[in-house]
Amino acid sequence: MSRPIKKIAINTGGGDAPGLNAVIRAVVLSALNRGWECYGIREGFRGIFEPKFFPGGGVIPLTRESVNNITHLGGTILGATNRGNPLEYPMTDASGNSYKKDRTDEIISFFEQEGLDALIALGGDGSMGIANALSKKGLRVIGIPKTIDNDLNHTVITFGFDTAVSFATECIDRLKSTAQSHNRVIVVEVMGRYAGWIALNSGISADAHVILIPEIPYSWEKIVAKIQEREENGKRYSIVVVAEGAFPQGGSVSVVEKKLDQEARLGGVGERVTKEIEARTGKEARLVVLGHLLRGGSPTTFDRLISLRFGAAAIRALEEGKTGVMVALDPPKVKCVPLDLVTERNKQVPLDGDSIMTARDLGISFAD
Amino acid sequence: MSRPIKKIAINTGGGDAPGLNAVIRAVVLSALNRGWECYGIREGFRGIFEPKFFPGGGVIPLTRESVNNITHLGGTILGATNRGNPLEYPMTDASGNSYKKDRTDEIISFFEQEGLDALIALGGDGSMGIANALSKKGLRVIGIPKTIDNDLNHTVITFGFDTAVSFATECIDRLKSTAQSHNRVIVVEVMGRYAGWIALNSGISADAHVILIPEIPYSWEKIVAKIQEREENGKRYSIVVVAEGAFPQGGSVSVVEKKLDQEARLGGVGERVTKEIEARTGKEARLVVLGHLLRGGSPTTFDRLISLRFGAAAIRALEEGKTGVMVALDPPKVKCVPLDLVTERNKQVPLDGDSIMTARDLGISFAD
Amino acid sequence: MSRPIKKIAINTGGGDAPGLNAVIRAVVLSALNRGWECYGIREGFRGIFEPKFFPGGGVIPLTRESVNNITHLGGTILGATNRGNPLEYPMTDASGNSYKKDRTDEIISFFEQEGLDALIALGGDGSMGIANALSKKGLRVIGIPKTIDNDLNHTVITFGFDTAVSFATECIDRLKSTAQSHNRVIVVEVMGRYAGWIALNSGISADAHVILIPEIPYSWEKIVAKIQEREENGKRYSIVVVAEGAFPQGGSVSVVEKKLDQEARLGGVGERVTKEIEARTGKEARLVVLGHLLRGGSPTTFDRLISLRFGAAAIRALEEGKTGVMVALDPPKVKCVPLDLVTERNKQVPLDGDSIMTARDLGISFAD
Amino acid sequence: MSRPIKKIAINTGGGDAPGLNAVIRAVVLSALNRGWECYGIREGFRGIFEPKFFPGGGVIPLTRESVNNITHLGGTILGATNRGNPLEYPMTDASGNSYKKDRTDEIISFFEQEGLDALIALGGDGSMGIANALSKKGLRVIGIPKTIDNDLNHTVITFGFDTAVSFATECIDRLKSTAQSHNRVIVVEVMGRYAGWIALNSGISADAHVILIPEIPYSWEKIVAKIQEREENGKRYSIVVVAEGAFPQGGSVSVVEKKLDQEARLGGVGERVTKEIEARTGKEARLVVLGHLLRGGSPTTFDRLISLRFGAAAIRALEEGKTGVMVALDPPKVKCVPLDLVTERNKQVPLDGDSIMTARDLGISFAD
Repeated sequence: MSRPIKKIAINTGGGDAPGLNAVIRAVVLSALNRGWECYGIREGFRGIFEPKFFPGGGVIPLTRESVNNITHLGGTILGATNRGNPLEYPMTDASGNSYKKDRTDEIISFFEQEGLDALIALGGDGSMGIANALSKKGLRVIGIPKTIDNDLNHTVITFGFDTAVSFATECIDRLKSTAQSHNRVIVVEVMGRYAGWIALNSGISADAHVILIPEIPYSWEKIVAKIQEREENGKRYSIVVVAEGAFPQGGSVSVVEKKLDQEARLGGVGERVTKEIEARTGKEARLVVLGHLLRGGSPTTFDRLISLRFGAAAIRALEEGKTGVMVALDPPKVKCVPLDLVTERNKQVPLDGDSIMTARDLGISFAD
Repeated sequence: MSRPIKKIAINTGGGDAPGLNAVIRAVVLSALNRGWECYGIREGFRGIFEPKFFPGGGVIPLTRESVNNITHLGGTILGATNRGNPLEYPMTDASGNSYKKDRTDEIISFFEQEGLDALIALGGDGSMGIANALSKKGLRVIGIPKTIDNDLNHTVITFGFDTAVSFATECIDRLKSTAQSHNRVIVVEVMGRYAGWIALNSGISADAHVILIPEIPYSWEKIVAKIQEREENGKRYSIVVVAEGAFPQGGSVSVVEKKLDQEARLGGVGERVTKEIEARTGKEARLVVLGHLLRGGSPTTFDRLISLRFGAAAIRALEEGKTGVMVALDPPKVKCVPLDLVTERNKQVPLDGDSIMTARDLGISFAD
Repeated sequence: MSRPIKKIAINTGGGDAPGLNAVIRAVVLSALNRGWECYGIREGFRGIFEPKFFPGGGVIPLTRESVNNITHLGGTILGATNRGNPLEYPMTDASGNSYKKDRTDEIISFFEQEGLDALIALGGDGSMGIANALSKKGLRVIGIPKTIDNDLNHTVITFGFDTAVSFATECIDRLKSTAQSHNRVIVVEVMGRYAGWIALNSGISADAHVILIPEIPYSWEKIVAKIQEREENGKRYSIVVVAEGAFPQGGSVSVVEKKLDQEARLGGVGERVTKEIEARTGKEARLVVLGHLLRGGSPTTFDRLISLRFGAAAIRALEEGKTGVMVALDPPKVKCVPLDLVTERNKQVPLDGDSIMTARDLGISFAD
Repeated sequence: MSRPIKKIAINTGGGDAPGLNAVIRAVVLSALNRGWECYGIREGFRGIFEPKFFPGGGVIPLTRESVNNITHLGGTILGATNRGNPLEYPMTDASGNSYKKDRTDEIISFFEQEGLDALIALGGDGSMGIANALSKKGLRVIGIPKTIDNDLNHTVITFGFDTAVSFATECIDRLKSTAQSHNRVIVVEVMGRYAGWIALNSGISADAHVILIPEIPYSWEKIVAKIQEREENGKRYSIVVVAEGAFPQGGSVSVVEKKLDQEARLGGVGERVTKEIEARTGKEARLVVLGHLLRGGSPTTFDRLISLRFGAAAIRALEEGKTGVMVALDPPKVKCVPLDLVTERNKQVPLDGDSIMTARDLGISFAD
C-alpha cells in the first residue's frame, strides 16, 4: 500500500441503531493504539460540506476521553445520522430552486487537504454504496454494516438487530397479558420494509400466533382462520405481528378497503390488518406500532460485543492494507467482503430456513 | 359481626393492570391461612351470570397451587377483566333488542346460595362503585384500588402505576437517542384521560422537554417556543410527552385543524400535537403511542410489594369485621377508607405540588 | 434572612447510591434557575482539604452542561463519596503518626473566603451529623437523605432504596429457578446492618421462604423447620434471604460454630447460615452475597423521580430561608425536618407493621 | 429406519440453564404436530430409576397445556437436572455401602417396555456422552447442546450462554459505578472452569480493565501494572473479571499465599486475586462472585429463539431418520453433528480470535 496511515476519519450514515457508539469507541481506541489520529465527521458528511453549521467544527478530533463510557449509550456522539446522501446531496441554487448534486469529489478533496488517509464508514446499504463510490475514486475505505432490519447480505447479522428484536419481544410479552385480560386481538407492527427478520424473530420468541412478513404474502382468510381456531380452543385472544412491508396475496381482497374510497385509503399495514380483523371477526382488535421504539436505546450485550468487534476489525483491516471492503460476521469470525457485493438490502428470510420451520412447528401461522 | 367467615370470593374488574395476580395470591394465601375457602369469579362477574360459558365453572376454587409462582405474572388468572358492569349489564331480549339491567341482586343471591360470606373486589372507580352498591345491599365487601392512571382518591398510590411509569420512562429513554440522532421532535402519548400522573412522572424521570397534562391546558405557542428555545441552544431535538386527556387553552387555535373539515378531524391528542408541531416549526415530528404497552407486563418490585400488601390487608380487614371499605396506601401504612368516599376518579396532579415545581425547575415546559 | 444567596456548593458523602447524579442535576438546574452559581465539592470534603490532589480543582463550577444527561447514571460526577469524616479527619503528623482532627472550621472558612452562601449536603446519618455540626457553626445547610438501607428516620423512604430492592428481587428470581432445578437451599445475603428493609421487601416481592432480619432474632431450629416443612410438601428447594445484621436468638446454638475454634470463626452472617443449614438438613446449600451489586447501577424510575424531587426541594428550602434541615418524603409531599432529629440510623422495620404481617400471611418464615 | 415413530421421551441433564423450558416447548409442540406422543422424564433419568419417588409418576405425558407459556421461564418443568449419571449411578448396597453402577441397560429396557421410540437428550458434555452410549446400544437419540459456559465443540453457541453473558455484563455495569465512587478495585468472578467465554464476552461488553481466563495464564505483576497505569492516569478504580478456571503463570508467585500455611489456603480464584491485589497495591479491593446468578432466570430473546430452534430441529432430525447426533448452530443454519465428536468440553477461546484482539485494542489487559 501507498503511504502509511497516520490520520483517519469515521462517519455514521442512515438511521439510528443501538451500537453506533460502541463501534465508534472501538474504532477510536484501536486507531489511537496504532499511533493514528482519529477524527469524527459530524452528521453524516454534513461536517465536511457545511462546517460552519457546527460551532465546534464539522470534523472533530476523537480522543480516549471522547469515547469514554459510551459503549452502552444509544444514539451517536457524531450527531444526526440520516443527513443527505453525498451522491445526490440536496442543494439550492441562487434562485432558490432545489436540485441534487454528486459531492463525493469534495469528500476526496477534503481528505487530501486534511491529510486524512482513510475513512471508516458506518451505515446500511445506502452508506455502503457511498463508501464504494468513494473507494472507486481512490479513497481508502472500510465499511461497517448497520441496519436494524438485518437485511444486508454477506453478513450473518448487523449490529442493532438483536436490540430491536429483544425490545420487540419484551413489548409483545407485555401486550400478551393485556390481550388475554381483555379477550382482544392485538396487532403489533414492527420495522421491516424489505425483510421480515424482526417480525419473525420477535414473533417466535414471544409466542405470537400470526406473523406476517414481506417474504410470505398473506391471505386475509388464513389470518381469520387462525384467530377463530384459537377461539374454538377457548383462547379468546391473539397476537398478530406484522412487518411494515407485509402485503396480501394477489387474490385476497380486503373487505375494509373495498368500502373506502381512494382518498381515505388506510395508512400503514398495521392499521389495515387491524381494521380488517375487526371487520371479519367481530372481535375487538387494537394496533400497537413499535416503530421508533426499536431504533433507540442502549444496545444489548450481544450488540455491544458485535459492535466493538466490528470497530476493531475495521482498523485491523486498514492496517492490513485492505480497502473497499466491509467487515462482516461469519461466526465465529469477523471477515471482510468487497463493498461491490453489498450494495443491496436483499437478505430476506429464507422460506426453507429452520426459523420458518420452527415457527410452523410451534403452531404459528404465516397466513399463507 | 354476624356469622363467622368460612368462604370468600374474589373478582377483578376494569382493564388489565400489573399486580393483579400478586393481589390474588396474597388474598388467597391469607384466606387459606385463616382456614377460609377462597373462590375466584371469572371474567368480572360473568362467572356468576353466565356460568355455562366456562367449561371449568364460572366460579372456581383457588388453592395454594392456583396461586403458585404468579406474583410476577402480568394479566390475571381470573380472565378478562373488563366485562359488563352488573349495575347496567348488557342484555338482549327475546326479540333481539339490547337493553341494560341491574343484576346486583343476582350477585347477592348467588353469594347466599353458595354460602359465600364476603367479596374482595379489585378494580378502579367503576368497580368500587359496584362494590359499594353490593355493600349497601348487605354483602360484606372489601375493595382493592387498581388504576394504572393513579387517579383514585384517598390512596397515595394504586398498584400498576409504578410499572406503567417505569415502562413509559424506559420507552422515552429509547426515543430520546433516536430523536437526537435524527434531529427530530418525538411526541409520546401516554395514558391519562382525567389526570396526568403517568405523563408527569415519566416525563420528569426521562428528562422530557415538554409535558402536556389535563390539569394544565396548553398553548400551541408555548410548545413551539420551547422547541425553538432548544433549537437556538443547539439542541435540535425535543421530546414532548402528552397525556391522552390533555387539551389546548381556550384561545389557542390549531393551525392544522383549521384546515381540516369536520369529518377528517384528527384522532388522538398525540396525533394532533404532532401535526401541529410539524406545521408550526417545519421540523420533522413523529408520534409514538404507548397506550396498551403500559397496561401489561410483569409488575415492578414496587408494584409486586404493594399488591401483596393490599391483598393481605383486605383479608385482615375482613377478619376485623370491616365491610364497605377499600384498602389504601397511606405510607408507610395501609389503611381502610369507606367506599362511599372513593367513587370518583378525581385525584388530579396538584398544581402547587412539588412534582410540578420540580419539573419547572428542571426546565420542563407545561406550555402554559 | 441574612444576605441573599448567590453561590452555593453541593457535596456527597457516604457510600454510592443510585440517584446521586439525579439529585445533583436537580440541585444545579434549580439553583441556576434562580440565578445562583453552583459548585461541586469533589470526593466528600476532600476537594476543600486537599485541592492540589485534583488537577481540575477541588471545587468545580457545575453548569447546565455538567449535569446534562446524568439522571439515569449510577455513581456520582463528584467522585468518591466515602472520604474522611471532617469531624474526625484522618491526619498524619510530621513523624508519620496518624491522628484525627475536627476540620469543620476549615470548611466554614472556605465558604466565607469563596463567597459560598450555602451547602447542600447529600448523605446518610454520618453526613447529616456533619451537616448539623456545620449548621450549628453558622453555615446555611440543607441535607438530602441517602441510604440504600432505608434506615434513616423521619423520611418514609431514601433514594437508592427502591433500586437496591428491585435488583435484589431480580437476583432472587434468578436464584429461585436454579435452586429449584438443583433441589438446593440458596442463601442470599443482602445489605442491612441495622435494619432489614432490603431483605424484607425483596424477600416478599420474590416469594422467598425464609427472611432473617436484625429486628427479629432467628432460631436455627425454625429455619430448619421451614425447609423441612417445604420438603415434606414436595418442594425440595428453599430461598433464605438474610440481612447482614441478622443474628440468632439467645438460646439458639450453632452446631457449626461449636466445632470451630476461635480463629476460624466464620465470616459473614450469610456464610454462617449456609453452613448451618447444610450441617442440620444434609441438603446442599449455596451462598450468594449481593452486597456491592445493590449499591451501584442506574436508578429505577421511582428513584430517579424521588431524587429529582429531593434536589429541587432542597433549593426551594434554601430560597425560603430554611437551614439546618433535611428534606424528607412524607407522601405525597416532600417536607423538611430539623437535622437535629435525624442523626441516627434507627428506622427499623416495625414488627407490627403490615409488611411483616403480609409476609407471615404469605407463609414466609422469620424463623422466630 | 426401522419402525415409524409414535412416542418419544425428553430429559434434561446437568445444571440449570436459561432456555431449557423453551427447548422442551419446541420439542413437545413439534412432536405433537407430527402426531407423536411426547413424555418427559423427571429429574434427569431418576424418573425411570426411582418412579415411586414421584407421586405424579416418574415419566409424565407432555401436552400442549404442559408447555403453555413457558418459553420465558427459567428452570425446567422436568425438575432437578443434575441427578446421577446413569453410566455410574450412585447406589447403596444392602449393608449400606455406596458403589456406582452402569444403569443404561435399564433405560433401554424401559424404552422398549413403554413403547418409546426415541429420546431427546438435553445437556452438556456429560449428557452428550450418556446420549452417545445409549445410541450405541441401539436407542434412537438426538442430543441438544446446553452449557452456560459455551465450551462445547462443534456448535458456535449453546443456549443459556447469551443470558449468562448479558446478566454478567449488567452486574459489571453496576459494580463499575460503585468502584468509581469508592476508588476501589472490584474483582468479579464468573463461571468458566475450562474456558473463558463468559469472562471475555462480559468483560469486553462492560469495558472491564483486566480479564483473566483459563486460556491465558496471568502474571500478578501485569495485573498490578494495569491497575497502576490507570491510577497514574487519574482513574483510581479498576474492574477485574476472572473466570473460575483462571490461574497464574508458572513463575508468578503470590505474595499472599506465601504467607499462608497449607490449611488456610484461599478458596476460589476470585478471593485469591482480590487478596493479592490488596496486598500488592495497597488499594481497597472487593470481590463479587456471580456464580449461581448466571445460571438462572428468564432467557434473553437470543436464547429463547435458539432454544426453540434447537428443539424443533431435534424433532425434524428424528423425522429424517437421524440418530446419534446432536443439533448444533452453524449460523445461519442449525445442523447435526455426530455425538461421537462432542464428548469433550474443549472449545476454548482462540488466542488469535478477533475477540481477544478486540479486547487488546480496547486497552483491556489479560495480564500476560
